[in-house]
Amino acid sequence: MKIQRVQVGHYNVPLETTLSDSTHGDITHFALVTARISTACGVEGLGYTYTVGKTGGAAVRAHLEYDIAPWLIGEDPRRTEQLWWKMWSGLHYAGRGGAACFAISAADTALWDVKARSAGEPLWRFLGGHDPRVKVYAGGIDLMMPLDQLREQTHANLARGFRAIKMKVGRPRLADDLERVAAVREILGPEMPLMVDANMRWSPEEAIRAARALRQFDVFWLEEPIIPDDVDGHVRVARDGGVSIATGENMHTLYEFQKAVASGAVAFPEPDLSNVGGVTAWMKVARLAEAFNLPVTTHGVHDLHVHLLAAVPNASYLEAHGFGLERFLRHPMEIRDGVTIAPDRPGHGVEIDWAALEAVRA
Amino acid sequence: MKIQRVQVGHYNVPLETTLSDSTHGDITHFALVTARISTACGVEGLGYTYTVGKTGGAAVRAHLEYDIAPWLIGEDPRRTEQLWWKMWSGLHYAGRGGAACFAISAADTALWDVKARSAGEPLWRFLGGHDPRVKVYAGGIDLMMPLDQLREQTHANLARGFRAIKMKVGRPRLADDLERVAAVREILGPEMPLMVDANMRWSPEEAIRAARALRQFDVFWLEEPIIPDDVDGHVRVARDGGVSIATGENMHTLYEFQKAVASGAVAFPEPDLSNVGGVTAWMKVARLAEAFNLPVTTHGVHDLHVHLLAAVPNASYLEAHGFGLERFLRHPMEIRDGVTIAPDRPGHGVEIDWAALEAVRA
Repeated sequence: MKIQRVQVGHYNVPLETTLSDSTHGDITHFALVTARISTACGVEGLGYTYTVGKTGGAAVRAHLEYDIAPWLIGEDPRRTEQLWWKMWSGLHYAGRGGAACFAISAADTALWDVKARSAGEPLWRFLGGHDPRVKVYAGGIDLMMPLDQLREQTHANLARGFRAIKMKVGRPRLADDLERVAAVREILGPEMPLMVDANMRWSPEEAIRAARALRQFDVFWLEEPIIPDDVDGHVRVARDGGVSIATGENMHTLYEFQKAVASGAVAFPEPDLSNVGGVTAWMKVARLAEAFNLPVTTHGVHDLHVHLLAAVPNASYLEAHGFGLERFLRHPMEIRDGVTIAPDRPGHGVEIDWAALEAVRA
Repeated sequence: MKIQRVQVGHYNVPLETTLSDSTHGDITHFALVTARISTACGVEGLGYTYTVGKTGGAAVRAHLEYDIAPWLIGEDPRRTEQLWWKMWSGLHYAGRGGAACFAISAADTALWDVKARSAGEPLWRFLGGHDPRVKVYAGGIDLMMPLDQLREQTHANLARGFRAIKMKVGRPRLADDLERVAAVREILGPEMPLMVDANMRWSPEEAIRAARALRQFDVFWLEEPIIPDDVDGHVRVARDGGVSIATGENMHTLYEFQKAVASGAVAFPEPDLSNVGGVTAWMKVARLAEAFNLPVTTHGVHDLHVHLLAAVPNASYLEAHGFGLERFLRHPMEIRDGVTIAPDRPGHGVEIDWAALEAVRA
């Protein structure tokens, strides 16, 4: 089996409503970069990655078009470990993170799609098939949303079938955060998991202070309280703040996760297959977490991640967040009583409406 | 003072002779990406970065053209801290390393050039001016060079004025490395510094074994014995191998250097301003090293780095290596008795022959 063609697409997907978090401010678009890998025998696999806003999309596309695509042509798509190292070491000097990891992610995901499709298997079962039932939470990107609207969003998420919810924190005044978290906790009742996400807004001391104040609302996890670079700071926030820490969407290598996990900096490692190096790297982070007796959770691209959480024994909640992509997909995820079922279509089974997407080509 | 124009160039510079190291194999080209920043009042600053081989150059250019350039227009070029954070946080999601750090490096270097030129000062004095006399070593990229040629190269480097030399190690057989290091040490005599560079070829155990064998040749430092991600591994190589470790050309953030330095993983931190985030980030790494009672050394782009080593009190040796760029420069570096003098032209004073470079535009 040989790769015959690698087709790269780059789109600026507008969001239906402007999102906001403490780092990126208002977000109106996501850059979507797609990689379609076809074999001589007619199997096509799809991979994709995205960046927040339009920023970085052109660099990710450049890595795929100019660097990665030529390396893949003629190779056996099933040798995912070999091809991953070919991409990683080939891109190493200007890589080890950044756009290179996003580009590898898209290509590697397409390879796994080819591989599972060739085997006639859905990706989740192909990867181990622990349990197709995956718990989901609604990932709200709602830092600047007025309180009334936040309440409405929470009710709407419950009506859509969610039984766990994440909301943003990190407003200029901590009192505002507390009021908002209190309002959502009141709607959810005392038992439903409520996660909060600070998007690296705080210093370690601010995060400890916030964590102590947030404990009264029994937050399931506090996500990205501080910058991902400060591993020791996470240890302090977890210990002195007294909350469980989730982090990982900004960590782009297995090694970064190793440092965080081995240091006790993170209770919920949160690799994102679209920027950590695809299915290959995500699964290694999941195994690392398992070895340290930790669950693994996800960030974004739930249509892909549902397969990975369904595959492994240490799955935590799946983040549901479409980033504007959902209206270009033929099979949107369904949620019932807080759970979604990993699809049984071959590969990851994501089908994009390419004709519709063409309208937002970058 | 306001930035009016940001002009980006991308070139594939062919090397006169094919270079080789243990990671990149044969190297025939370097991708050069330039950023020229002009102010409304007519000051132009130059920054540049490069990647090994052609790989990654298009992604670096894309970050500069599509992401960074629009952010800089209209800004005050002297506010390097503000602009650095604007670039770092703007690129953060697809950044924190990789092509983003290379692009920031080129832009930040151009800003410092503008700033020093506006002040009518050479960069080294503008940054503190500790000592314009900078010790230099010849950075050989010669892993696969036949032994006779390696001997000739060593004699030629001594004739050019070098009094310290670095050579590659990491051949398939350690015995080969030892034979080659012995040959160069014999030419240098017992006192001249001889550095060796393994370009991440080894596992920690292989590196310890190699370090123990290399000690007989009194190596000044052993560079990149293992992958930069493995901080603890470096500590073991330094301790059990009994040699001083240099590393840093593949570390792209201040935080990575902090972990390495604070762990005792590195004796000679080696930030490269062309990939660590420009002059702004390089100076912070130098201060970090100083605070830990360590010297700082460099990697590549010696025409820029000479200013930074001349500025700080904890300068180690400057790596002299042109990466093919030297024939496009109007003022090649001069070396006498192992020392070069930081130039007194305003800014960094590097002048590129743009007309000649045009022939290798990517």
